[in-house]
Amino acid sequence: MPETLFKIDLTKPMHAQEVPGHNRWHPEIPAVVNVKPGDSFRIECKDWTDGQIKNDDDPSDIRDVELSVVHVLSGPIRVEGAEPGDILVVDLLDIGALRGDEWGFTGIFDRENGGGFLTDHFPDAAKACWDLQGIYTSTRHIPGVKFAGITHPGLIGCAPSAELLATWNKREKALVDKGGPPWKPPIPALAELPNPKNAVLGTLAASEFDRVAAEAARTVPPREHGGNCDIKNLSKGSRIYFPVYVDGANLSMGDIHFSQGDGEISFCGAIEMSGYIDLHVDLIKGGVEKYGMVNPIFKPGPVEPQYSEYLIFEGISVDEHTGEQYYLDAHVAYRRACLNAIEYLKKFGYTGEQAYLLLSCAPVEGRVSGIVDIPNACCTLALPTGIFDKSILPT
Amino acid sequence: MPETLFKIDLTKPMHAQEVPGHNRWHPEIPAVVNVKPGDSFRIECKDWTDGQIKNDDDPSDIRDVELSVVHVLSGPIRVEGAEPGDILVVDLLDIGALRGDEWGFTGIFDRENGGGFLTDHFPDAAKACWDLQGIYTSTRHIPGVKFAGITHPGLIGCAPSAELLATWNKREKALVDKGGPPWKPPIPALAELPNPKNAVLGTLAASEFDRVAAEAARTVPPREHGGNCDIKNLSKGSRIYFPVYVDGANLSMGDIHFSQGDGEISFCGAIEMSGYIDLHVDLIKGGVEKYGMVNPIFKPGPVEPQYSEYLIFEGISVDEHTGEQYYLDAHVAYRRACLNAIEYLKKFGYTGEQAYLLLSCAPVEGRVSGIVDIPNACCTLALPTGIFDKSILPT
Amino acid sequence: MPETLFKIDLTKPMHAQEVPGHNRWHPEIPAVVNVKPGDSFRIECKDWTDGQIKNDDDPSDIRDVELSVVHVLSGPIRVEGAEPGDILVVDLLDIGALRGDEWGFTGIFDRENGGGFLTDHFPDAAKACWDLQGIYTSTRHIPGVKFAGITHPGLIGCAPSAELLATWNKREKALVDKGGPPWKPPIPALAELPNPKNAVLGTLAASEFDRVAAEAARTVPPREHGGNCDIKNLSKGSRIYFPVYVDGANLSMGDIHFSQGDGEISFCGAIEMSGYIDLHVDLIKGGVEKYGMVNPIFKPGPVEPQYSEYLIFEGISVDEHTGEQYYLDAHVAYRRACLNAIEYLKKFGYTGEQAYLLLSCAPVEGRVSGIVDIPNACCTLALPTGIFDKSILPT
Amino acid sequence: MPETLFKIDLTKPMHAQEVPGHNRWHPEIPAVVNVKPGDSFRIECKDWTDGQIKNDDDPSDIRDVELSVVHVLSGPIRVEGAEPGDILVVDLLDIGALRGDEWGFTGIFDRENGGGFLTDHFPDAAKACWDLQGIYTSTRHIPGVKFAGITHPGLIGCAPSAELLATWNKREKALVDKGGPPWKPPIPALAELPNPKNAVLGTLAASEFDRVAAEAARTVPPREHGGNCDIKNLSKGSRIYFPVYVDGANLSMGDIHFSQGDGEISFCGAIEMSGYIDLHVDLIKGGVEKYGMVNPIFKPGPVEPQYSEYLIFEGISVDEHTGEQYYLDAHVAYRRACLNAIEYLKKFGYTGEQAYLLLSCAPVEGRVSGIVDIPNACCTLALPTGIFDKSILPT
Repeated sequence: MPETLFKIDLTKPMHAQEVPGHNRWHPEIPAVVNVKPGDSFRIECKDWTDGQIKNDDDPSDIRDVELSVVHVLSGPIRVEGAEPGDILVVDLLDIGALRGDEWGFTGIFDRENGGGFLTDHFPDAAKACWDLQGIYTSTRHIPGVKFAGITHPGLIGCAPSAELLATWNKREKALVDKGGPPWKPPIPALAELPNPKNAVLGTLAASEFDRVAAEAARTVPPREHGGNCDIKNLSKGSRIYFPVYVDGANLSMGDIHFSQGDGEISFCGAIEMSGYIDLHVDLIKGGVEKYGMVNPIFKPGPVEPQYSEYLIFEGISVDEHTGEQYYLDAHVAYRRACLNAIEYLKKFGYTGEQAYLLLSCAPVEGRVSGIVDIPNACCTLALPTGIFDKSILPT
Repeated sequence: MPETLFKIDLTKPMHAQEVPGHNRWHPEIPAVVNVKPGDSFRIECKDWTDGQIKNDDDPSDIRDVELSVVHVLSGPIRVEGAEPGDILVVDLLDIGALRGDEWGFTGIFDRENGGGFLTDHFPDAAKACWDLQGIYTSTRHIPGVKFAGITHPGLIGCAPSAELLATWNKREKALVDKGGPPWKPPIPALAELPNPKNAVLGTLAASEFDRVAAEAARTVPPREHGGNCDIKNLSKGSRIYFPVYVDGANLSMGDIHFSQGDGEISFCGAIEMSGYIDLHVDLIKGGVEKYGMVNPIFKPGPVEPQYSEYLIFEGISVDEHTGEQYYLDAHVAYRRACLNAIEYLKKFGYTGEQAYLLLSCAPVEGRVSGIVDIPNACCTLALPTGIFDKSILPT
Repeated sequence: MPETLFKIDLTKPMHAQEVPGHNRWHPEIPAVVNVKPGDSFRIECKDWTDGQIKNDDDPSDIRDVELSVVHVLSGPIRVEGAEPGDILVVDLLDIGALRGDEWGFTGIFDRENGGGFLTDHFPDAAKACWDLQGIYTSTRHIPGVKFAGITHPGLIGCAPSAELLATWNKREKALVDKGGPPWKPPIPALAELPNPKNAVLGTLAASEFDRVAAEAARTVPPREHGGNCDIKNLSKGSRIYFPVYVDGANLSMGDIHFSQGDGEISFCGAIEMSGYIDLHVDLIKGGVEKYGMVNPIFKPGPVEPQYSEYLIFEGISVDEHTGEQYYLDAHVAYRRACLNAIEYLKKFGYTGEQAYLLLSCAPVEGRVSGIVDIPNACCTLALPTGIFDKSILPT
Repeated sequence: MPETLFKIDLTKPMHAQEVPGHNRWHPEIPAVVNVKPGDSFRIECKDWTDGQIKNDDDPSDIRDVELSVVHVLSGPIRVEGAEPGDILVVDLLDIGALRGDEWGFTGIFDRENGGGFLTDHFPDAAKACWDLQGIYTSTRHIPGVKFAGITHPGLIGCAPSAELLATWNKREKALVDKGGPPWKPPIPALAELPNPKNAVLGTLAASEFDRVAAEAARTVPPREHGGNCDIKNLSKGSRIYFPVYVDGANLSMGDIHFSQGDGEISFCGAIEMSGYIDLHVDLIKGGVEKYGMVNPIFKPGPVEPQYSEYLIFEGISVDEHTGEQYYLDAHVAYRRACLNAIEYLKKFGYTGEQAYLLLSCAPVEGRVSGIVDIPNACCTLALPTGIFDKSILPT
């Protein structure tokens, strides 16, 4: 086992750890771990909420979660010799649970607390707590399902440069100022702009704290550096190619998911957990220009769970409430595919909330199947039938 | 081999076939084939353009294609006993090329003739012609790639009821009247509304032709009945569950693709071909209500080509020209993922057009990876590395 | 579709075809097809018995089959420039049924007519006739099973040199003279030595017929050149590397199987059919020495049917009748694994004969799992559960 | 993480553990762990040699290993309510390395110390030591290869009844008395009969020790109860159905392999390691008769490493030294397939010993491809090309 370079005490919040991590993106947050290209090492992570959720049957903790705290990240990790324009090559050698904390949770965020993809249909907070049983998981809150995890860090990436950070802040503020698309529900919000409340900035000097906290980007969206991509296939054995923006790269990570469906639709939709990640790092000097890289690229690992039978639901970009036709809108089309799958699962005895939670965290595939056939986008949701303990095929 | 119930003479346009098919959707287009539940049979299909494209090196036929002709469909097929509210169960037993016509084409539509997903980046018509070599294909127009087909009908579905047709026409007209989203380029059009020009309506009585042609929906978009879904995984061995809207179901199909990538991004993006489809049909009486079905559902077949190594490109919903931030826009995010992959492939010697054509027709996977992390959607494009005759991994 | 270079008239036996094939191996059988490296072409094949078996419910044709006739092969194919020591690279581009002959048969050979792997347990002839339904097959003789084919030539290889032929004849005669291992049942025979009866030698001059027929090797066993390997994974899309022994290579093939289990245990155990094979050929000059090749090597194709759930049966090298312990004997161990699977399937309502036929032709995997743990070999038989229309898991 | 019910101190031999395991099979070895149906728990295991092999470059420890010590097993585990005739259902929830002991070894046993499958070709001891890097492994002793593990217990099974033990002892002694097949080399031995030397019998009362040690079966071969099956696919997530022979079942296990090829051909051929196994147990009362069970049956797990490209080597049952023809001998045929693969790999710069070690421990598939085509068995060895860092295809 590689040496653990970032340790977590699960009884303490991130800011009170012996070496604290961070929950904002900023180039000036100091590295707390130093490694060399070629090194392998272990990083421990708290769950994304910093331990706000309990393993019980009451979803009020989901409803009341303090979102200014998220996502708590482990790092930054300085890689010797890394310079802007390099590619940082990260191998995810292994990912697993911390001893004594082998459980996870999936939540539907309350409409009053951020909501999610289907918040108009499921406005109330709900929660499923999952037992992690080796490679498998099951939950008392959704009977009759069991599946193997495809564990991954929901969030991983290098620190932005000052310029890149400024770009993020500018464009996100412009969106808030301008407003979203016509179909946008009032919830979720358009964006989370910098917010000093509950900011954790690692070992940053106190003298710099207020300035940096006011500038630092929230961790919610995926951006050019990767970040909170929530890509379910970024699992054990993956090799990721990250653009480097600052000297030392300053890689951070967190938000470990035991499993997730494409889209992570309920927002807190993965099986969220604390855990460890074993990594190996290397550099491709000058790789960003050599390969015309904008966003990270990755090669998934060889041990993803295999299913040979799927039931696939189609969705098109027509609003389910108004019947309004949207133009090649893959967001609406995927929402319709999800709703179609939920309606179907209700015929097999699941509540809508159970189905919504399940599509969020089980290894469903969400595809952009057709994106050119005006005016409808066609998205599909593929549900592996093997996760159920009985047949869910039509008969 | 099952009996061929719909035959094609490749030397004649669809309207001049001995038994003509159709290129519009309308409940009154008469069935031309009759089958019973439990039957297996073969249907032959022309390519979607009705033979307008030639196997040569000149893309002017793509530029000048007459789009009022598309898509030419084989059918309708009446299934005895099928009634509105039933599910029509269709097994795609086999799909293949017609003897003597074993080739296909992929095109980039000209900005002046409809455009495609990336028309702002690739405004000019281009074409690749593919040799079909058993399960494999390759093309003189994109050297160094070869892959196995995942052959499927781009378009298949049952005839709409009069009510459903009226709904389609109303909502699509409303979209044209209202206009599209802010990022919409002037090309492609918002929608294709009913257009009598070049309408082919099978054996419909002449007395009804003008009325029906004025009402009948174009075949371009996927809709509730399925239709032009362009789902690459709807391949050999798939079982599809279709909602039935009219007595006899009136199933039609066409637009066979030897292979396609998720999204079919260049619009004429699959490897388009003529061919045959062997089908088996059955009914689930009253299945639509029993299973809460809105759109078709399907179970993919067991013989899709397998790849174990992918290179995956991420994209986020930020406009590539203006840097504008869009709100959870999976369309923009997938466009960025595609552009990132194209930029990467250009580093390996492909032109942008070659890369665009390749991502359209090779078996790439397009995923809605994260759709809740405000304000960015994250889409991914997974490129199987095994289709190239040399390594395309970063080094 | 490539040009058909070897055609079959299904109404005539092989010796009466316009251009006859052959049913023995000998370097002097003249090539009847000429191709160049880089060529693609189609070869048609009769079923291995030359049409002796009928699509009915009476297994007497299996019992009475004339085995001196087998295997009827299509070829030889001369490849220009091929010389001894070269590698002939053969791509199996496609394999399929002949129009109007879309069925196959699986037989248990009678103890009096050659027997098979489990002849002591199932001494009587039996037959299952399979309907080929596109990629799938099912049979009225074994209800409740349906699966996708993994179609392949049971037999393919280049003509031996005179020296290689002499080696074969010598060592096989020595075996007959010496006798087999202690566990050998009286049936099947030890080997089939050259037998002029019913020999078909293509276009060989009459003056040479008797001499060559007396020397020519039977086609039954796999040998250094490949030949009757009955490898189920040598399916569509495979690339095979064959050693060349004579000028022109003289490639022949036949014994097409729609599907087969590892081992082809009932001897006539595949789903035997007539059909066509589309091939592409090329040469690696001097490849045999360059790669130290003894037997053929191949790369399987990408479209094998996928299953994600198997039930696996173990077997060890202890005789099922006497309890005698054999020494690391994988033959006995695989027999026990097969018998264990048959016994299990009988608990689900199948007769022993049905189970034996099914394990012969369904895509079961037979593995040499442990071959060093004295004195027991451990072989396993993996049965894909998805071929059954109900669950066969223990409960 | 489930509770650890059997702990290992890596600094002590098995007999000196606080609760010792055992290295022989006998119904009277007392259970040391008690569980109930439905329980999940962790068992720790030493490597099969009880720590005799060192992580260095000197194979003399392989040459000098004391084989009377093997295999050291953890257990027996008593399952409440289990009775003879029941099926014990064992889920392998997870398998992994022990902290601080993340390495493994593969050895070629010396001809003077037991030998292996190819001992006539590779008579001298050799060793490769593997670094375990999360899901991957690589070794300084075989450059250019890296692969994901398919970790499994080489040995797991329930205690035999007195009657079953007597059967084993009787038939194995009869083999030794009678002698092996004609092709048998003088090494390895025919069988390992009961041997009190170095017997470890758990907590058995001293008064019974000598008698039991004289009766207890060696752990080397797989037998009816499973035992040392060395089945590489019995990995994470597998569900195994074991026959129960004694009250409480008395399940034991050990010989953990990080990875192994089918056959484990060099005898010490897996990547041998210490480790832990997380299990879940349940019972099917009376299941042995209900399902006609003789040997264990299992359902493999869903996370086996996936490869899409293999190079497959054929072998036939002709002796490589003498050219003698054997009768449908899958042992000889698989040996030839292995030798063909080794010869091939030598052309890419590996020594024969390196290739032999690699085929022993990498995830190669060994198939009984044809077992009825008299007189030759055809076995195949499928080598995943993705484990090499360069192409090994012929060109």
